[in-house]
Parts: sequence; structure tokens; C-alpha cells
Amino acid sequence: MSGLFHFGGDMELNFSRQTGLVTAVIQDHKTNRILMVGFMNEEAFRRTVATGAVTFYSRSRNKLWVKGETSGHRLLVKEISTDCDRDALLIKAMALGPGVCHKGYESCFYRRLENGRWVEAEQRTYDPDEVYGSNA
Amino acid sequence: MSGLFHFGGDMELNFSRQTGLVTAVIQDHKTNRILMVGFMNEEAFRRTVATGAVTFYSRSRNKLWVKGETSGHRLLVKEISTDCDRDALLIKAMALGPGVCHKGYESCFYRRLENGRWVEAEQRTYDPDEVYGSNA
Repeated sequence: MSGLFHFGGDMELNFSRQTGLVTAVIQDHKTNRILMVGFMNEEAFRRTVATGAVTFYSRSRNKLWVKGETSGHRLLVKEISTDCDRDALLIKAMALGPGVCHKGYESCFYRRLENGRWVEAEQRTYDPDEVYGSNA
Repeated sequence: MSGLFHFGGDMELNFSRQTGLVTAVIQDHKTNRILMVGFMNEEAFRRTVATGAVTFYSRSRNKLWVKGETSGHRLLVKEISTDCDRDALLIKAMALGPGVCHKGYESCFYRRLENGRWVEAEQRTYDPDEVYGSNA
């Protein structure tokens, strides 16, 4: 992976299909669990590649968002793939901290469909109030 | 999973953040490989749950799209999860056929970033011309 952070080649993506954004799926590089889904604009993608720390574009705050900048739960890039349309990224990452979800779970996908309802299928791994304060 | 296709409960999703769509990440239920990313509107989601065959909303064709309706490479639902914002789905599925990607690969994520370039990181598993005709 030494060359991952080296610019100059063809890193083209198609940002036109989602108003300047591509979808970024984050997968734990060891367990292959899906941890979260976010969005990147071109600057977020370039910073992710350049720094090795996953950086999203926050649609609600309209700005770049280094994942873990508040919580310390950063995502360190191990491998990046793109799909046939070049409008989605799959990023294998090492997750720092007990969980990526701001609600206190290891993965944002902590609810499973059972009998027509979303059911919490696992325990919290940390207390979000302690990490984010009571505004989380 | 017998209850998965039973309606009546709280299956609410947030379709408001992506103009009526949610993101749907498809993961192989045995290998945990990510096979593709698509989008669903509410009708596509309900049909996916009701039929057990992954059904997307095609943004380019503006219509429902039963994955595999042309190729036979259907995706059979094994488990559905949603994320903290309820605007993304993670669907574990059994993939029928040699690959889900219309370009002839097992996964749509067949290109990896190496030295600042997207590089095809694996071999095709089938000839798309034979499955889709030469318009693929």
C-alpha cells in the first residue's frame, strides 16, 4: 500500500450523478464488517488519499468532516476500490476506538429487520454521551 | 429469517435525504465481500422485502429494476440492516450466477487504487457479451 498516497495518475471518479458526491462504504479491514456509509466530494476523496484518514463530506453540515475529529474514532485507510460506474468507493479501514457510530455502536448498521420491524441486534460498545456530550 | 417477509410493523426509512432514495449496499452473505451499491425507493424496498429478491430503483432508467431480470444473476435476500440515520441499507444476499457486475466481474468493486491509479485487481468471471449481448 506504499503507493496509495502517491498522486499523479488517473484517480478519476464520477461526481456528476449525486450532485458532486460519491458514496463511500467503509468496511473493517480485518472482520469485513460494514461499519458505515458516507459521502465524499472530490476534496474529501483527495484528502482521504493524501492523509490516510477517512474524510467525508457532511451533507447536513455542508463541510468536510474528518471522521473521528471529535471522538478520536478515526478510520485509517488500508485499501480503496471503486465500482464499475466510478460513483461509489469501497474503503477497507482500521477503525480506532470502540465504535464508529455516534449512537455508541461498533457499526452504524446495528438494526436488523425482523418480522417487519427494525430491531437493535447488538449492544452498545461505548456511551456516546461520554464521547460527544449530551448533544449526540 | 422466516419473519423477514412479514409486513405490518415499523419498517420506516428516511427517503428524504436522497430525493426519495436510500443507498443499498449488497454484501455476499458467506464471504462478506461487497458486491455492489445501488439505490432503492420505497416501492423497491417493499418489493425486496416481499419477494426476497433484491430490487433497486434505477436512476438512469427511472424505474424499478429487479437485479438479474436480464442476466439471471439475482440476489436472494438473507438479512437486511439499516443504519443510524435510516437512509442506508446493508443487505446480505446470496448471489446467483458467476458475478453481479454487468462488466463481467464477481463484484462491481473490481478496481483498486494503486500508485494513484485505478487498477483492475481481478479477472472477469464471465463474458458480459454472452449474457447481455454486445450492448453491455
